[in-house]
Amino acid sequence: MAELALNATSTPQQARRLIRDGHWQQHTSGLAAGHAQANLVILPEAQADDFLRFCQANPKPCPVLDVTAPGDPYPRSLGDDIDLRYDLPTYRVYRDGKLSEERHDITDLWRDDFVAFSIGCSFSFEEALIAEGLEVRHISERRNVPMYRTNIPLIGSRLFGGEMVVSMRPFTAAQAIRAIQITSDMPRVHGAPIHLGDPAQIGISDLQQPDFGDSPVIHQGEIPVFWACGVTPQLALENAALPLVITHSPGHMLITDIPNHRFKFG
Amino acid sequence: MAELALNATSTPQQARRLIRDGHWQQHTSGLAAGHAQANLVILPEAQADDFLRFCQANPKPCPVLDVTAPGDPYPRSLGDDIDLRYDLPTYRVYRDGKLSEERHDITDLWRDDFVAFSIGCSFSFEEALIAEGLEVRHISERRNVPMYRTNIPLIGSRLFGGEMVVSMRPFTAAQAIRAIQITSDMPRVHGAPIHLGDPAQIGISDLQQPDFGDSPVIHQGEIPVFWACGVTPQLALENAALPLVITHSPGHMLITDIPNHRFKFG
Repeated sequence: MAELALNATSTPQQARRLIRDGHWQQHTSGLAAGHAQANLVILPEAQADDFLRFCQANPKPCPVLDVTAPGDPYPRSLGDDIDLRYDLPTYRVYRDGKLSEERHDITDLWRDDFVAFSIGCSFSFEEALIAEGLEVRHISERRNVPMYRTNIPLIGSRLFGGEMVVSMRPFTAAQAIRAIQITSDMPRVHGAPIHLGDPAQIGISDLQQPDFGDSPVIHQGEIPVFWACGVTPQLALENAALPLVITHSPGHMLITDIPNHRFKFG
Repeated sequence: MAELALNATSTPQQARRLIRDGHWQQHTSGLAAGHAQANLVILPEAQADDFLRFCQANPKPCPVLDVTAPGDPYPRSLGDDIDLRYDLPTYRVYRDGKLSEERHDITDLWRDDFVAFSIGCSFSFEEALIAEGLEVRHISERRNVPMYRTNIPLIGSRLFGGEMVVSMRPFTAAQAIRAIQITSDMPRVHGAPIHLGDPAQIGISDLQQPDFGDSPVIHQGEIPVFWACGVTPQLALENAALPLVITHSPGHMLITDIPNHRFKFG
């Protein structure tokens, strides 16, 4: 093959084909622009129903885009030819709540009781913000988004619970109002912010010390704006210490066929 | 007539009939709940086209709901039987930019070159905020909304210009986000806020010293949220010092037949 590089102009089908064939094992950030990427969580059916209830009760941090039938590796609502056993660049396997291994293919781990959750990702709304002319600071600074544990309680289920994790993007007041408008129209990819302004009000003691990601670059006069973050369900899963959970590796997402603008309609 | 009182349960038609007959010359706040009230500006045609351009260029402070044809006292899009010559409780007549008199009827001043502007009013979005469970502080405190001159420049026309006047309502961060969502859907009654947080960023030096209305009651942890205000065009008119302008008297609005929820669709 002459050319094995992927970029923003690749189609989702092209991207998944190279990933599937083992030619792309890097981050998916910026690939197949305009198409939704998704977080992946795979659980045995024994815990999956409880996880689905947990997600439904906490839709802002855990916006479920697709749930497969037990044993079915195909998230049929997200594309015609997606196979969750090998269409992501890198997977993480957790055993008893601990990271056990990273893999590029989980075919030989697949079980006929596995249920796969595809969960909306902030990449979609960040693309919408940029399309409206807003600067998303961590992207222009080529850093990872800063993420923070908060004191905002989740609605617990039998197995899952804890507090919300948020991501933060700084904006001027006028930009923050516009960002609220834009993301309010995208409830399936975290929707509107859950807080803005004083970080202490949601239990964040130092904005410069995020719990995940890189420290923020905030300009004079900007307000921190906080969105519910997809790391929330990952932490809830780790805390539940289940026998076996498989997820995507951070940044190594599922590339779907869904145009991001479709989320503007809920 | 046995009963000449109006209240929230009065219909717009009942309210206008008593006003027309001279039996109600008070404020209209809280009357005919669920129906839009409007600011009124009447100008000779010689200045009216320029004022319309000014409003169109500055739709957040000057959201035009209806403009009559010259000489026509009927704002036909706002109700079937409205006559702007006597359907408001109190009018103000300005001559050469100065308040000349207050009247309850302007029939004998009416001219066949008069053009009447009905301009959206914050009563409509405040009702929507309250309906969603948000506390609008100045209403629960039975005060007038605090209003401030800002340094936000308007887009000037030949005769009109200046800076925006804003009204302020305090909310917690989560309430502010919800208020932005609700009012974003109501662009014909001032729409989304234009600022939140630090008042100095828009040229307000002391929140406790509003330029119009009453001083605010702000609770610990609340953020001031600022909306474009209908006082903006009134100030622009005063500054233009035109030979003759007629407006409603503050708080003595036009009660229309338009249900407030209709503004949710633009």
